[in-house]
Amino acid sequence: MARLNATHDPALRSWVESANAPGAEFPIQNLPLGVFRRRGEAAARARGGVAIGDRILDLAAAVGAGLFAGGAAEEAARAAAGPALNPLMAMGNAAASALRARVSALLAAGAPERARVEPLLVPMAEAEMLPPAAIGAFTDFLTSTYHTERGGRRTRPDSPLPPNFKHLPVAYNSRASSVRVSGEAVRRPNGQRQRPDGTVHFGPCEALDFELELGLFVGPGNPLGEPVHMDFAPDHMFGYCLLNDWSARDIQRWESHPLGPFLSKSFATSISPWVVTGEALEPFRAPAFPRAAGDPEPLPYLRSEADRREGLMDIRMEAFLLTPRMRERGEAPARVTATRFANMYWTFAQMLTHHMSNGCNLRPGDLLGSGTASGPTDESRACMAELTEAGTQPLALPNGETRRWLEDGDEVIFRARAERDGFVPIGFGECRGRIAPAPAWPRGRDDV
Amino acid sequence: MARLNATHDPALRSWVESANAPGAEFPIQNLPLGVFRRRGEAAARARGGVAIGDRILDLAAAVGAGLFAGGAAEEAARAAAGPALNPLMAMGNAAASALRARVSALLAAGAPERARVEPLLVPMAEAEMLPPAAIGAFTDFLTSTYHTERGGRRTRPDSPLPPNFKHLPVAYNSRASSVRVSGEAVRRPNGQRQRPDGTVHFGPCEALDFELELGLFVGPGNPLGEPVHMDFAPDHMFGYCLLNDWSARDIQRWESHPLGPFLSKSFATSISPWVVTGEALEPFRAPAFPRAAGDPEPLPYLRSEADRREGLMDIRMEAFLLTPRMRERGEAPARVTATRFANMYWTFAQMLTHHMSNGCNLRPGDLLGSGTASGPTDESRACMAELTEAGTQPLALPNGETRRWLEDGDEVIFRARAERDGFVPIGFGECRGRIAPAPAWPRGRDDV
Repeated sequence: MARLNATHDPALRSWVESANAPGAEFPIQNLPLGVFRRRGEAAARARGGVAIGDRILDLAAAVGAGLFAGGAAEEAARAAAGPALNPLMAMGNAAASALRARVSALLAAGAPERARVEPLLVPMAEAEMLPPAAIGAFTDFLTSTYHTERGGRRTRPDSPLPPNFKHLPVAYNSRASSVRVSGEAVRRPNGQRQRPDGTVHFGPCEALDFELELGLFVGPGNPLGEPVHMDFAPDHMFGYCLLNDWSARDIQRWESHPLGPFLSKSFATSISPWVVTGEALEPFRAPAFPRAAGDPEPLPYLRSEADRREGLMDIRMEAFLLTPRMRERGEAPARVTATRFANMYWTFAQMLTHHMSNGCNLRPGDLLGSGTASGPTDESRACMAELTEAGTQPLALPNGETRRWLEDGDEVIFRARAERDGFVPIGFGECRGRIAPAPAWPRGRDDV
Repeated sequence: MARLNATHDPALRSWVESANAPGAEFPIQNLPLGVFRRRGEAAARARGGVAIGDRILDLAAAVGAGLFAGGAAEEAARAAAGPALNPLMAMGNAAASALRARVSALLAAGAPERARVEPLLVPMAEAEMLPPAAIGAFTDFLTSTYHTERGGRRTRPDSPLPPNFKHLPVAYNSRASSVRVSGEAVRRPNGQRQRPDGTVHFGPCEALDFELELGLFVGPGNPLGEPVHMDFAPDHMFGYCLLNDWSARDIQRWESHPLGPFLSKSFATSISPWVVTGEALEPFRAPAFPRAAGDPEPLPYLRSEADRREGLMDIRMEAFLLTPRMRERGEAPARVTATRFANMYWTFAQMLTHHMSNGCNLRPGDLLGSGTASGPTDESRACMAELTEAGTQPLALPNGETRRWLEDGDEVIFRARAERDGFVPIGFGECRGRIAPAPAWPRGRDDV
């Protein structure tokens, strides 16, 4: 782990006391980036910030106050001070690293700049988080063998994994326009599906699901026609968020053959607002998923020694369900999933390299979803389709309620934490979304 | 055809003489919109223009010269004068119609403004065409029964059409970042595929194909969560172009199960630079594809009387192939496809309504591809996979050459024309792309 530096020092503490609390998601070792505004401010005031404890360091204000006097850190802070982080993402990881080093110094206990920085902190409770980037494209992968096999067993019991699964990271283009930040309601989609009797209907989705994933924001990216060698894929990996790939299973089943999921996914995708940088996650790197006897060796273009050694990350990921009844009664959300990112058969470097391998150009702020991060155990099933065996076995919640699929008013909450002995754990914040009822079908020209 | 007006009058002629030539693609009845700059001008000079004969009316210059004095036409011209037509697309079709009426008046034979307008015409030969819009999303459909059945017969001889085909317009999200305007070279992609012996390889595509489609640019679009009734879908249909959905068939075959085509399509898509507006195409409206006995009635959300009566358009579409040998010898390109847009089982209004039916938000400048517009006859096969039965029956070209798939140096050229007795035919201009060799695989960190 040669890329550790002073910002990772577990002894480091911040003068922002809430950052030092045990279990704090945003200690000084994290410093994720996001875009926010104070509640009530005009949309045009959206600007970049860094999370520290329960505060946000306002980067626009910090630049204005001259706290990044010159050099790479100031250039990076300026790029992150606007209404989207794309300009910073475009600069590459050295820029983000310079910014991180300077912010760490400003926020560290004993920092001489404390008196100048303290007025620039915005309480998270007074802020509204916005999408961290203008997302030009969203690509979703399918990379957990456990998730794929549980799904495949129902339809292809003899060979639940598709033949290509262990040769390439399977993916599809999903919809960028409907990616929304945590907290925005998710409207149940209307859609077309085939009932078991063969009849085809249109109406509100009857099998609404979540998918617990990690998202990757792309850094500089590549020009059209110019693939990138896997050795350099990490240079294009800016940072990570939680991602809920909401899925309408009934619509998906009917529409997906032969061209893949479309409307079953494009009605909404939720992401957590804080982007945890690759540098913040350096202490938590983990080996690639172990290949079993008989598993094909990845083709050379998807292979690198460094990636095999540390291509994954030790991140625990959890999903909670908060039903309307729990909300009314003041009950805590029920944890329905506890899994680990290290369950993924492919690494993000492999996903990114494969994505660019045909010359397809990726751009700063493009978003890649890891695929549902299910693991081998029952508690690590990371979507309702797995938890309920496609709606056939209701999930029992601790308060006596059951669920086959998500119901209106249900709220799904994701959390994640990178952990390793000897390091301060860092969190991702929340990715939440509450299901709103499907819209009534709009009126036509002749409807009264 | 209540929506015909003075701009469609077949007797109308322009003082730009080249627009009046028999067979001219851009007569005064057409007036398509595009974005251009003079060759050699800086990128920032990109601006909107209207094609007339072999000239482009510079909209930025025309606005500056006060030729749209006030009102809706001036507002629309300003929205179209910048480096992308998205602002005009966002305004809706009434704005485009006001602009069309005024431009038609300015360019009509006898126009008193001729002396002021003439200096603002740029010869097409001196212009470089740029993408007409910033394309936020590109969705590709599969709507010709003929194309789908020819493909399906190889893999599913008993039921070549997927079960959902006649119930919904099948589609997938494709890649917007790699859409390029006519004339840009198309690099053969590298990719992964499975050989008949079961082994898996990575290298230059061995089955490169074109697909002849029509593209639709979306107008205002809809907010997330708010579907649009089919009656109002035409309000969101701005205009049309030719679209070549380049396809790597070997990569496609291997990667597409279970999530659909991905890298086999995302390496490049070519579009013609001129956007022919819906209003220009009003005279050429045609009934929806006739349903046969046994075909399901479209579900109510995909049905409107107006669409059944005139949801398609009479557009002839052609594909030509220009090989390196033809180029060397000065031979004309060989026509390989002659088909009609009226072959499509679904209309663009149905595609758009379906796309929005789950609440997915479409935005101005989003692009929809019609799917390969193949017809029932041999000459109307609109891709190489059909023309050569998946590469097994070489296509014989008039000069004695043969092709199973596209070779390096081959250039594919699309043309299209809307025609109807009693009206002046209008053209789409060209959509061209020449195949460049696959890039060598880039070097890694340790490669010398």
